[in-house]
Amino acid sequence: MIEEISIEDLNPEEFVKEKVDEISSIVGDGLSINALSGGVDSSVVTMLGHKALGDRLKTYFIENGLMRRDEPQQVVSLFADIGVHVELIDAREQFFNALKGITDPEEKREAITQTFYRDVFGRLVRESEAKFLLQGTILTDVDETVAGIKRQHNVFAQLGIDPEEAFGYQIIEPLVQIRKDGVRKVAEACGLPESVCNRMPFPGPALSARVIGEVTPEKIELVREATAITEEELADVDAFLKLAILHDDRVTGIRDGRRDFGLQIEIRCWDSVDARIAEPTRLPPETLDRLAGRIVTDVPGVVSVTYNVTPKPPSTMEPI
Amino acid sequence: MIEEISIEDLNPEEFVKEKVDEISSIVGDGLSINALSGGVDSSVVTMLGHKALGDRLKTYFIENGLMRRDEPQQVVSLFADIGVHVELIDAREQFFNALKGITDPEEKREAITQTFYRDVFGRLVRESEAKFLLQGTILTDVDETVAGIKRQHNVFAQLGIDPEEAFGYQIIEPLVQIRKDGVRKVAEACGLPESVCNRMPFPGPALSARVIGEVTPEKIELVREATAITEEELADVDAFLKLAILHDDRVTGIRDGRRDFGLQIEIRCWDSVDARIAEPTRLPPETLDRLAGRIVTDVPGVVSVTYNVTPKPPSTMEPI
Repeated sequence: MIEEISIEDLNPEEFVKEKVDEISSIVGDGLSINALSGGVDSSVVTMLGHKALGDRLKTYFIENGLMRRDEPQQVVSLFADIGVHVELIDAREQFFNALKGITDPEEKREAITQTFYRDVFGRLVRESEAKFLLQGTILTDVDETVAGIKRQHNVFAQLGIDPEEAFGYQIIEPLVQIRKDGVRKVAEACGLPESVCNRMPFPGPALSARVIGEVTPEKIELVREATAITEEELADVDAFLKLAILHDDRVTGIRDGRRDFGLQIEIRCWDSVDARIAEPTRLPPETLDRLAGRIVTDVPGVVSVTYNVTPKPPSTMEPI
Repeated sequence: MIEEISIEDLNPEEFVKEKVDEISSIVGDGLSINALSGGVDSSVVTMLGHKALGDRLKTYFIENGLMRRDEPQQVVSLFADIGVHVELIDAREQFFNALKGITDPEEKREAITQTFYRDVFGRLVRESEAKFLLQGTILTDVDETVAGIKRQHNVFAQLGIDPEEAFGYQIIEPLVQIRKDGVRKVAEACGLPESVCNRMPFPGPALSARVIGEVTPEKIELVREATAITEEELADVDAFLKLAILHDDRVTGIRDGRRDFGLQIEIRCWDSVDARIAEPTRLPPETLDRLAGRIVTDVPGVVSVTYNVTPKPPSTMEPI
């Protein structure tokens, strides 16, 4: 049982100090690695690790082909600006091969987990001779996995998996007692820029969590385009999470006066404090009109756009 | 080429008189049959036919298992009230058998067309010895079929199909020069009650047009429930068309604290004058909240509800 540190009890500066000491004492003179996705969780872990270990932490950005437009380069350059070197690893082929033919959401998540921890990280750990992996698991990830809602890719011990046995390295999780709202406060205390502290959550399986049915490079490109448009058009909307989903179902549309049995994109935009419960944001109709108009114009094959109007529960925020 | 009678040029009383004379002169002393769905098109044709032929027109309601809740009984009793006898034909098994295993929308439409005209109507014509079928095809049906947007079930001549050869009877189409707005005016002139004159359009393939993927009795029951809730909750909304669609795609939800890979219902509500172009109705957020809340509570297995925000074109109003 993990002891939660509530947002009221959290002293971000103290927390940073404690966790830096903890990482130092566990890793000792050894080496550690970590994966940075650019999200607030892995960004905080990167900062804590570098404060504790300096050059003895090696930080990687895994380009799995499933990230948003320009995201890999943006993350590397943002951290270069604050003095942290991040190495970009091109693993696109490995991930797309692992996802081929899979339609079940939990199998998708499992394929990504295995590719990430066993194939890609396994190799990096062996090559670097690191014995530790620093990772940004938060309490909500553990809760959802244990409750059987979603298998979060970064949860092992609570499922009875020993990462040392399964993958050959030990996993350190400095954020596992707090939730997203706490992480954001710690991010500020670490000196991370505002764009990182308040960055929207983005799921572990990245854009593959937003493709219903089989994931292919072509479908990822379509949902990447729809995601870019959605984030742009909703940039001024103050919401917890904004996302675009590519459906597998086809619906009838009209293109150039003829029938086009085309694609559908679903938009979701959520108001939430800590992701446990959420409500659809009440977007102005003009905003939805403009967003839908751009998507059917700019995303090839899309004839229909919907907006999700269900709360969580019974919905979840991500569709997969 | 059909000569359109525009809404400005239409004199409804004159139109009724002309069409009654036309039907009388074509059918002569013979017998005719027609199918009444309860929609404004087939209701007007039923009235014109009875004015022209009296008892020599036999009117059927085909219960295909794809109609809305209580619709068959409601239509029969409404027409009984205005003195027109309608015979209810139970053809549920024939339609569900014909739809088994079909996922392509055009194949679905074709299966329904063949079951309706060849199997069910073929038998009724043989038994009644009628030589004519009166039918409510309107100009928009012809346009969409000829343009290759949607194959409407009631369009033959324009596709080079001779119904007499294909099915053994001649088809008479008194409404083929006008559109929905014209039909509503003629409906008033025929003395039909207001509820029929302004009845929402409902597609030929009925609820099977609102199930993405294979149509089964179980899925029809779910979309029938969602449709009833949608029509109830939006009863006070002044819109051209209101519909609920059952998707084939599944999305992750939460039920009783556990993962439920569940169903999604899409709501569409359209503002339109003549169905050629349409805009999504700007529903108040409270209305959408209430509608989504009832659907996830009352329709078994549904965890997610969306609202369509795309205009026609590039969408169409019905999804199939």
